Amino acid sequence: MPRITIRGLSVEQVCQISTRVVDQLAEICECERDYFTLECVQHAAIFDGQIVPAYPFIEVAWFERGEEVREQVAKALTNHVLGLGIPEVEVAFTTYAQDAYFNNGISFK
Amino acid sequence: MPRITIRGLSVEQVCQISTRVVDQLAEICECERDYFTLECVQHAAIFDGQIVPAYPFIEVAWFERGEEVREQVAKALTNHVLGLGIPEVEVAFTTYAQDAYFNNGISFK
Amino acid sequence: MPRITIRGLSVEQVCQISTRVVDQLAEICECERDYFTLECVQHAAIFDGQIVPAYPFIEVAWFERGEEVREQVAKALTNHVLGLGIPEVEVAFTTYAQDAYFNNGISFK
Repeated sequence: MPRITIRGLSVEQVCQISTRVVDQLAEICECERDYFTLECVQHAAIFDGQIVPAYPFIEVAWFERGEEVREQVAKALTNHVLGLGIPEVEVAFTTYAQDAYFNNGISFK
Repeated sequence: MPRITIRGLSVEQVCQISTRVVDQLAEICECERDYFTLECVQHAAIFDGQIVPAYPFIEVAWFERGEEVREQVAKALTNHVLGLGIPEVEVAFTTYAQDAYFNNGISFK
Repeated sequence: MPRITIRGLSVEQVCQISTRVVDQLAEICECERDYFTLECVQHAAIFDGQIVPAYPFIEVAWFERGEEVREQVAKALTNHVLGLGIPEVEVAFTTYAQDAYFNNGISFK
């Protein structure tokens, strides 16, 4: 954690930005690079009866780190996606409670 | 957003209801049709050692719109799924905080 | 519900533990075995430009059942995964509000 789930980008596009994104996020969050996981969601998106390209969307699931860090992370992710030539992306954050997150059976509370 | 993630229906079934569902939800939510995204989750469901058909389940991720709208959205989604001859479906809502949701790096707060 | 979403294990590994996990969770949660769904997430995980094995991670989405039950569920899931020879796993819980969860259009409030 943070777990970063990416929809609407190809595996190749995620690979392309993956090193620099994690470099930057580790710096912003002041944590190890290998805390981050990137996952490329490949479910079918559907609109008006047809399979369509998925809208670019990134979800960050983590412990709350406050508004300033959240905004920096959103901007960093956005800039890397826009840098691929993708015109628009949404980034959303969901938070885990520390007493509801366990590593090998031990919670973070 | 709203993002609608559907499990336990085939891509064909989601295609079949997709136009009318979005028509109705746009009316209930008083927003543009293209705010909605539909995603068809196709992960393996497993029970007692075997891959089984996934239980029909829909998750709506959005900003809170209040109980009345939530109930209308749940009923609309349910009716469209039942109309496919599926006997049972669950619909769950998760909400984003406005200051934790960003479009091109700008939050909705 | 509870919905258990598993990442970083193969379908075969999930099949292997599925019966005993559900036996144990039904006992801990004092509910029917068939309330539980297990889903095996198979999205690509990416790190430093490459597809990599996904980090073992389990998400439990349910109604809040309190700290004691939560800890027992985390430990049970963890033990079954470690029993497969996997050295590390994280387990996170997310909760639904009862008035935001609907079965066939009727909420649980």
